[in-house]
Amino acid sequence: MKKLKRSARLVEMTQYLLTRPHTLISLTAFADRYGSAKSSISEDLAIIKEVFEEEGIGELHTLAGAAGGVKFKPVMPKHTALAIMHDICARLEQPDRVLPGGYLYMTDMLGQPDLLADVGKLFATAFRDRQIDVIMTVETKGIPLAYATAACLNIPVVIVRRDNKVTEGSAVSINYVSGSTKRIQTMSLARRALKERSNVLIIDDFMKAGGTIQGMIDLLYEFNATVAGVGVFVESGDVEREERLLEDYISLAKLTAVDMKTKQMNIVPGNYFNS
Amino acid sequence: MKKLKRSARLVEMTQYLLTRPHTLISLTAFADRYGSAKSSISEDLAIIKEVFEEEGIGELHTLAGAAGGVKFKPVMPKHTALAIMHDICARLEQPDRVLPGGYLYMTDMLGQPDLLADVGKLFATAFRDRQIDVIMTVETKGIPLAYATAACLNIPVVIVRRDNKVTEGSAVSINYVSGSTKRIQTMSLARRALKERSNVLIIDDFMKAGGTIQGMIDLLYEFNATVAGVGVFVESGDVEREERLLEDYISLAKLTAVDMKTKQMNIVPGNYFNS
Repeated sequence: MKKLKRSARLVEMTQYLLTRPHTLISLTAFADRYGSAKSSISEDLAIIKEVFEEEGIGELHTLAGAAGGVKFKPVMPKHTALAIMHDICARLEQPDRVLPGGYLYMTDMLGQPDLLADVGKLFATAFRDRQIDVIMTVETKGIPLAYATAACLNIPVVIVRRDNKVTEGSAVSINYVSGSTKRIQTMSLARRALKERSNVLIIDDFMKAGGTIQGMIDLLYEFNATVAGVGVFVESGDVEREERLLEDYISLAKLTAVDMKTKQMNIVPGNYFNS
Repeated sequence: MKKLKRSARLVEMTQYLLTRPHTLISLTAFADRYGSAKSSISEDLAIIKEVFEEEGIGELHTLAGAAGGVKFKPVMPKHTALAIMHDICARLEQPDRVLPGGYLYMTDMLGQPDLLADVGKLFATAFRDRQIDVIMTVETKGIPLAYATAACLNIPVVIVRRDNKVTEGSAVSINYVSGSTKRIQTMSLARRALKERSNVLIIDDFMKAGGTIQGMIDLLYEFNATVAGVGVFVESGDVEREERLLEDYISLAKLTAVDMKTKQMNIVPGNYFNS
């Protein structure tokens, strides 16, 4: 790369950091990249750090020492997150979203790239300091949320299939009981998809009693993997306490009431905002 | 937002543009956001434009006039794209990726956020000047590619289901014949998922004869929608010319030969790089 002026270097460094979240970049790498002294790079990083933190873009962590460098973590401030979730909840409450059975139609919203970027950044903020190797979700509607989160945390995604027709070599299948409907279902994951002893963040779009997520946790045990966290976009509050299979999770929104006659719903920010 | 110095403003504007691709932002909006004169904003944009274009980040288009402003389009230069695809092809050629039936195991690679960001930017480059309202894909493996492309083009995604158990109100289902296996299969899309007369970009992970993609095109006709383009990650060259159902598509890689005995494959950059 040709030598850049400070103004141009700030632009380039900003895009370099933004496109490499949760990645340690040494000052030497930056100094070599721009043909600049490390002292100049440090000054640039100080400017970028201040803007990133003041404007709610994220944190810039500087690690000192020979193995040191700088790491960008996308972080959404809680007041920004709450404003965004209030807006999302209002959109989710539209009466034509009530489906037979009290389900919530949100497929269209999960197709919007700007909403996904926000929600991904929100999950990445909530789980930013956990040790996570991989994100797991189950097809189909959790997939975009998992990828949006993975992009911010810079870790891969594995997708659990709802059948056992996996064409990817040997697979582990388990049966699980959907907590709310009490039906027995199957999910499976290819053996080669997940390394043993991985730390896994589970992301899903909707949770009622938690049967599907409990199924994913049971599947993880088969791989000697560990649950590093559970994040759901919307949880249903319409579950008796003793029916709830899961206690330790983060929800971004909570569906507290559905009136099937009037198609009125009440959706509020989830438990993430209580802490 | 408090008034920023030029250096800080360059950092903030860079992140603002990068997170809003294919979105027209008026100079007035920038001037208001930073409490700066439009002339200063124009100077900043000139610096950003030069870095974005020199470093292969993308194009910054300036539209003059009252409705004018600036629009960032992510663009990957062809030589960068070719280097990335050569690397991807080499990874795809690993012998343990040959599955029974001559299929190619690439689920792990489609879980990597950095690879997806590259491939999404590549598709977004190839289709950047077409009029596109929405990206369509079919579950499951095309989904991450569709979202990665959608993030760069800033348009929504709709996902066609492989069954007709859509719980999203009335749906349109069609039967299609998988070109290579000659089996009849079903795919469906909820009525509310796609507006009539949309311009649709189809993205998928793998194409052999093109039966699945032809199925999606047939489904589009049911919505009076138009195909704005077809992009596939890997096409199989192992198809007779008269078996190929589709002529007009862009492929990023081409699987030209599989030897099932030695598990040797040959994968080369696709037709995108011939033009």
